Amino acid sequence: MKEVSVLIRKVVRLQREEKLIPPGSSLLVAFSGGVDSVSLVDALLELRDFLNLKKLSLAHFNHRLRKEADEEEEFCREFARSRELDIFVGAEDVGEVARREGRNLEEVARELRYAFLRKVKNERGYDLIATAHHLNDLVETALIWLSRGAGLEGFLAFEPREGDVVRPLYGVKREEILSYAEARGLRWVEDTSNTDPRFFRNRVRMEVIPVLKSMNPNLEETFLRTRRILKDENELLEELSMNALKGAKEGNCLRVKELQGSHVAVQRRVLRLFTGVRNFSKIEQLRNLLKRGGEVDLGEGLRAVRKGKLLCLKKKG
Amino acid sequence: MKEVSVLIRKVVRLQREEKLIPPGSSLLVAFSGGVDSVSLVDALLELRDFLNLKKLSLAHFNHRLRKEADEEEEFCREFARSRELDIFVGAEDVGEVARREGRNLEEVARELRYAFLRKVKNERGYDLIATAHHLNDLVETALIWLSRGAGLEGFLAFEPREGDVVRPLYGVKREEILSYAEARGLRWVEDTSNTDPRFFRNRVRMEVIPVLKSMNPNLEETFLRTRRILKDENELLEELSMNALKGAKEGNCLRVKELQGSHVAVQRRVLRLFTGVRNFSKIEQLRNLLKRGGEVDLGEGLRAVRKGKLLCLKKKG
Repeated sequence: MKEVSVLIRKVVRLQREEKLIPPGSSLLVAFSGGVDSVSLVDALLELRDFLNLKKLSLAHFNHRLRKEADEEEEFCREFARSRELDIFVGAEDVGEVARREGRNLEEVARELRYAFLRKVKNERGYDLIATAHHLNDLVETALIWLSRGAGLEGFLAFEPREGDVVRPLYGVKREEILSYAEARGLRWVEDTSNTDPRFFRNRVRMEVIPVLKSMNPNLEETFLRTRRILKDENELLEELSMNALKGAKEGNCLRVKELQGSHVAVQRRVLRLFTGVRNFSKIEQLRNLLKRGGEVDLGEGLRAVRKGKLLCLKKKG
Repeated sequence: MKEVSVLIRKVVRLQREEKLIPPGSSLLVAFSGGVDSVSLVDALLELRDFLNLKKLSLAHFNHRLRKEADEEEEFCREFARSRELDIFVGAEDVGEVARREGRNLEEVARELRYAFLRKVKNERGYDLIATAHHLNDLVETALIWLSRGAGLEGFLAFEPREGDVVRPLYGVKREEILSYAEARGLRWVEDTSNTDPRFFRNRVRMEVIPVLKSMNPNLEETFLRTRRILKDENELLEELSMNALKGAKEGNCLRVKELQGSHVAVQRRVLRLFTGVRNFSKIEQLRNLLKRGGEVDLGEGLRAVRKGKLLCLKKKG
């Protein structure tokens, strides 16, 4: 039962360190029927007393994307029955919505799934949504965002707790989940879309990570350590920038002189906070405004104008 | 000739922005005979007047690793003759040295190559060594270091100029070098070790980068933008940490109270600067010293001891 204890131990440690789930919480678990969410529910039931859970229920969203979707829904209902848990099931033809709205399939799926989860949570009075995101999801997400150029914040990917969502398996590796599920004799469904190479995340998981792990077998733990350092460094940079923003702000404008006294790294972050713009070359254009004056079109009916000692936001027109 | 102009334009822009090569310099180019270094020399000759070069010569290091090594050396000598350039050739059985010393082959190769380059440079009075490192090398190096857990500094990989080494192709992509070489009708040798999957870098180049590029075709440019932001942010963090170190230092010790007043991100960097230790868990142990006292073994005959208000470095014994 060594494998069991790794996963359980990590969940317990995260709970101790981060106070993830307040005592007496009622949890709604986002449940797909895959090995991750089956193991999550199994572990939460094991730890029900330790966590002092008031209530634990499941919510399954049927995306109607694959022919097996209805069988999977039935598996989830059966799993809930066998554990004597309530389950709420929602369904929507995600593919149809994505086509109709001409949008990215994964994005639409995520949006509709979370809308369903929040609706159940609020209508039925649960405190938190628990998802089965784990350490490999974290590494994959970081690499994806980094490739897209999202900088430090992107690399940080997601937190063990964000708003009403908690992730008890945050520090657990995929292989540790599999060992746990096997050692516990769990049954689960295999989501065939998890190996579809048309989904970019799957290629990262199946092609990129194995190469990186061939150099560093402890890639996931290494990532978590690096992330810890970078998270704190990002927080410090954020603090400095918030203070610089407060110091330079004058109504809808920034005092140019104050901003010019800051380090370029702080200037960029202040301009990002002030305008909401994330695009690098726009930010560099704004930095140019500080030196040379003029104006920059920020899109969405907004422009930044340098007038004398002030850099101001104006509605277009 | 559009392809020619991309590479040349990027070299010119880098020279203008970074003042990479001071006017009147004599350059020693690290020359392997591969497409990168052949294109580099060709471009430097094209730009000889613009760069105001006093002298341009080649240095080839024969690693004696592959059976083609001697033919490649001959190719390099012939290339130099055809361009009327001096060439210096060094050779060492790198594989034999690595085996004898029980060390990593790539590491030994790098060390011996640079020792040779520096020797020629100093004995013959060149000002700078130019290498053909380009944007894809930069991205690959960043990913490798990041996978190893090297944090921000690792992600920054290398600079256009470091000490006596300059990299005029810093901002040029591999595909732009190939287009340049073809458009200019250049000849070069193919290094078969560049496709050997036993070398980790090759797997990153051949397996990891293509997947990331399938999501973001502008991966290299995106990386360069992200790197620009992170480089400045790293510089600011370094400044803050150097100042905090100066403020807290007292001989061979740090004043604990001063350090405890700093942000945790600064604490970690100060402790790294002060002890030379980079290992994450050691640094966390040192942070614990600040709170609780005691001592930490730093390895290499050194230990850190908290005595009252001071954290001091002591030789073991």
